[in-house]
Amino acid sequence: MTSSYMGNILRINLTNKEYNITPLSVELARNFLGGAGFTVKTLLDEVDPAIDPLSAENKLIFSSGPLSGTAAPCASRMSVSAKSPLTGAVGMCMTGGHFPVELKFAGYDMLIIEGRSSEPVYLYIKDDKVSFRKASKLMGTNTFDCQQLIKDDLGDQNIRVACIGPAGENLSKMACIINERRAAGRKGLGAVMGSKNLKAIAIRGTKKVGIARGNAFKEARKRMLKAMKESPVLYSQMSKHGTPMTVDATWAIGIFPANNFSTTGEWEPINTLGAQASQKYKIGSSYCYNCPVGCGQLKLVHSPTYGSILGEPEYETYYCFGGVTGVDSQEAVITADRLCDELGLDTMSTGATIAFAMELYERGIIDRDITDNIELNFGNAQAMLDLIPRIAFREGFGAILADGVRIASDKIGKNSQKYALHIKGLEMPGYDPRGAKAHGLGFMTAYTGADHNRSYAFQEVFGIPIPYAIDRLAINGKGKLTKWNQDIRSVTCDCAPMCAFLMDMAVPAIAVENTRDLVNSSTGLDFTSKEIETIGERLNNIAKVFNVLAGLTKKDDYLPERFRNEEIKSGTSKGQRIPEEDMLLMLHEYYRERGWNEDGIPTRSKLEELGLAREMGLLENAGMV
Amino acid sequence: MTSSYMGNILRINLTNKEYNITPLSVELARNFLGGAGFTVKTLLDEVDPAIDPLSAENKLIFSSGPLSGTAAPCASRMSVSAKSPLTGAVGMCMTGGHFPVELKFAGYDMLIIEGRSSEPVYLYIKDDKVSFRKASKLMGTNTFDCQQLIKDDLGDQNIRVACIGPAGENLSKMACIINERRAAGRKGLGAVMGSKNLKAIAIRGTKKVGIARGNAFKEARKRMLKAMKESPVLYSQMSKHGTPMTVDATWAIGIFPANNFSTTGEWEPINTLGAQASQKYKIGSSYCYNCPVGCGQLKLVHSPTYGSILGEPEYETYYCFGGVTGVDSQEAVITADRLCDELGLDTMSTGATIAFAMELYERGIIDRDITDNIELNFGNAQAMLDLIPRIAFREGFGAILADGVRIASDKIGKNSQKYALHIKGLEMPGYDPRGAKAHGLGFMTAYTGADHNRSYAFQEVFGIPIPYAIDRLAINGKGKLTKWNQDIRSVTCDCAPMCAFLMDMAVPAIAVENTRDLVNSSTGLDFTSKEIETIGERLNNIAKVFNVLAGLTKKDDYLPERFRNEEIKSGTSKGQRIPEEDMLLMLHEYYRERGWNEDGIPTRSKLEELGLAREMGLLENAGMV
Repeated sequence: MTSSYMGNILRINLTNKEYNITPLSVELARNFLGGAGFTVKTLLDEVDPAIDPLSAENKLIFSSGPLSGTAAPCASRMSVSAKSPLTGAVGMCMTGGHFPVELKFAGYDMLIIEGRSSEPVYLYIKDDKVSFRKASKLMGTNTFDCQQLIKDDLGDQNIRVACIGPAGENLSKMACIINERRAAGRKGLGAVMGSKNLKAIAIRGTKKVGIARGNAFKEARKRMLKAMKESPVLYSQMSKHGTPMTVDATWAIGIFPANNFSTTGEWEPINTLGAQASQKYKIGSSYCYNCPVGCGQLKLVHSPTYGSILGEPEYETYYCFGGVTGVDSQEAVITADRLCDELGLDTMSTGATIAFAMELYERGIIDRDITDNIELNFGNAQAMLDLIPRIAFREGFGAILADGVRIASDKIGKNSQKYALHIKGLEMPGYDPRGAKAHGLGFMTAYTGADHNRSYAFQEVFGIPIPYAIDRLAINGKGKLTKWNQDIRSVTCDCAPMCAFLMDMAVPAIAVENTRDLVNSSTGLDFTSKEIETIGERLNNIAKVFNVLAGLTKKDDYLPERFRNEEIKSGTSKGQRIPEEDMLLMLHEYYRERGWNEDGIPTRSKLEELGLAREMGLLENAGMV
Repeated sequence: MTSSYMGNILRINLTNKEYNITPLSVELARNFLGGAGFTVKTLLDEVDPAIDPLSAENKLIFSSGPLSGTAAPCASRMSVSAKSPLTGAVGMCMTGGHFPVELKFAGYDMLIIEGRSSEPVYLYIKDDKVSFRKASKLMGTNTFDCQQLIKDDLGDQNIRVACIGPAGENLSKMACIINERRAAGRKGLGAVMGSKNLKAIAIRGTKKVGIARGNAFKEARKRMLKAMKESPVLYSQMSKHGTPMTVDATWAIGIFPANNFSTTGEWEPINTLGAQASQKYKIGSSYCYNCPVGCGQLKLVHSPTYGSILGEPEYETYYCFGGVTGVDSQEAVITADRLCDELGLDTMSTGATIAFAMELYERGIIDRDITDNIELNFGNAQAMLDLIPRIAFREGFGAILADGVRIASDKIGKNSQKYALHIKGLEMPGYDPRGAKAHGLGFMTAYTGADHNRSYAFQEVFGIPIPYAIDRLAINGKGKLTKWNQDIRSVTCDCAPMCAFLMDMAVPAIAVENTRDLVNSSTGLDFTSKEIETIGERLNNIAKVFNVLAGLTKKDDYLPERFRNEEIKSGTSKGQRIPEEDMLLMLHEYYRERGWNEDGIPTRSKLEELGLAREMGLLENAGMV
């Protein structure tokens, strides 16, 4: 039957330089849909959760999804998973651009990379053919140059390339994977790729993605586009400002973080980093494949040092190179963004880690003897920029910071852990959880660590009342809301997959019914709405099983101390904190809503309900149930 | 008849946004062959030599040539001409890469750009169709980003783009035009493009270049490839080291310039900037279209400030950011190269201008009050790098330097002119003329100013005895040699066109006979060897006519004072200088060999011999004969 599944899984072994193509099983498709469903399930099935993430036993798994490469809008998304070297938990990222659909065009629903090459290589996948090509000469190149060099090397400018920069080669646990100008950004997946001696993956595909039921798909697509048009913000605001408009939104409710979250609410970013202030730097938009929105904001600055710098900073980059470092400069944010993209560093973890170091410096916990003589005060833009290449190259103080705040604070000691703000080792996103409690609970319980992308509580930031209105400061009800956000987002954004911004900005468009109709008509499978929702729930359960087996405990679901003990001192969220008691109230409500026990471990009945018998067995074998 | 000429000239008027396509005249082809022959002849025919080069009256003219886009090796070359804003003379550059053949594939033997757009535009030429596209958003982007943004904008990664960077937009008279990683580098052609509000030219062609006589062409090509293989240096050395190997060659004969030519011969560059020392930075080669040599040396450095920097410095970049600034660092040379390419600055003029400023600083003629507080001593690599963006953006001291040494010394005054080393306003190349006299005479008499590419005296540097052996220190005979070098190089490298390195490194390969056979078999025209040589001579005569009409005099053919009055103090060329008397001996011999009068003005008999009646009339009207 014609279907938007390509029907094939490509498995590449870097150790022995072999590859094979096996059929996609209908069971996997029915239970996990695609994207993160495929990659996380495969991770749990094939990778021992106890392994060292930078060993040859880890796998790097890519899957776009059944909607990718079809005419469905905003579906050029791809999940990348491995055991994260930063968190020790499931490391799952979504990325966009054009690479995700090229993987489909080459004929694959999933790409599994195993083992470790003895020398630097890059992969060239041209439809059914895979070449292992020497990459020793590419090592050290930045991600922009690397992509172009590979296109020139292969004599085909239409190839799409995902690659790592020096940060990934140097195994920075903040290293990302870059394709075009997009990143599989967080959790150190770039270091996993680096540990495999894999500099890049070049893909060119010439196959067509099929559609099972053309007319039904056309209708479903039309409904989706109509719903997107009806969004009050998607085209009017998101196209124009992109995610950086969130600076204004988070400031308005007093949760735009400043100075490593020590002065949230005090510092007014609107005139310098806000959406209007950003416009004068904008020179264009960037679009993923088949996206009518184009949220990517190409921004240009001229620097007396760096020359002409074109960046594409998202909100989170404004947060981490702006607010949380106390740096008040578009020029610095845009330059830092470009430097990180070139070097293959996650902007969020990198900025948050520099902010952590700044607080230590301000408090006298570290001094210029350790910082390579850099004056590391909050707000020092040049100091921030100076640290970025050092981190990527692991030079001097950069070597201490290169693996994020948790490891840096372990190395520094001296009570510095108190200022290392992370959950499961992943640095905090740009939402002060004290003023947006479901954000806090989402960061606590996301299977990837303090991740804003697994359960974005748009209800608290944009006031969109789906599934129901919510008080952002309330504690009660956040467990239920977070479960809903996680499950729906998991299936629609991470498995189908469709762009998360459709969910945040145009919620009705991405409702379960629209997803169901698009998926059913493109794949030919017949999911009910309930089954669609269950796929999201199933994903969150298997990811939790992996984390439990990897040794993570309830304590890994806790908020950093600062958010429990220190109140926000100024602004709209003044006086807010999340005392331990409240934190546990939210957490327990969440566990209950999930059908997990008080320690956050999935119960037998929940796993049976979800048809996860094998996962149940794994927990039993580990003595966890 | 099938021919490697496409038969069409594309003329684009930016003022009224119109274009037309007219047939190539056989007369132009027979008398000027292609490339620089076409562009310089058109410049003289259509542009008043008295105009302001940055006015709308100037034209920017592109022509590859009859061999470009054929299977002839190393023929992806293109001439770009305009009246130069830096010299006031003919501004003619050759460039390579892939853009030159794409112009052919689009169907054109010449592209003439006229007028001036009222707002920033870029051109998109797709075969017969030309679009004028808004470029206001592209202004300020660097040349690498600009090329990618245009490909993305047009949705075609196979487009080739030639563009300017911020330097060209800011009308720096040292601004170049960049296509891919190649530059039409010198004489400020980037400023001409900037003055027309033209950010870029994007070309995509789908036509085939014909061949008049297939079998004869195959045979001629085979002979050429065989001759290239027989070169003792082309594949063994040029592929491996590229032009930077010249550092070793010029050092060996004591003419590698140091510290603004004040200490040539004293400073030993081999261990730091020499060919062997360069190898550890090399990560790959870059190739122009259909080139089997690949002389482009891709070199990578990691910088704590700039990150991962990939440059492709030629010998002249080593000279101008190495020796002549006294900077002893591969890292600095490679970084400066990349910065200049991104910003669209000619590396040679930029480095030489910084070296000029360094000498003024060392001599106390300028101080930190004027240098933006930069300590501008010879050898200060960071100071050199700091000036590059300032020059491109015309910021602070950069505004004084942005138009090269002649204008900078006029602005600074205080006897600084003495250290402004240029001929006709074009800064000196990396060969101290005192130790290689034909180089000196070549720089003096090149119609483009102190240009090593119009008559490279390979005989003096590499000892290749064609057409005859020569003593590099002798004065006598250099006039005859220089005329020969200029005429042969003009026709083979600038008109046919073939890569100049074939002439420098594999001279027999590019002998007149091979050129004739390739040209005759591809075009179907029947040139004799004598006619081929005459085309080169004709080009040098019409260029001289333009320069005379533009107001240049015999004095513009003089060497800078330093080379006449100061001896080289150390090394293999110790004691050498070119006293005014010797300089005039060489110059007069050259004029005689050319059949020009004692003031360097072409005579009636010479112009008649070359069939240049119209040019004769121009000189008569101007009262010059």
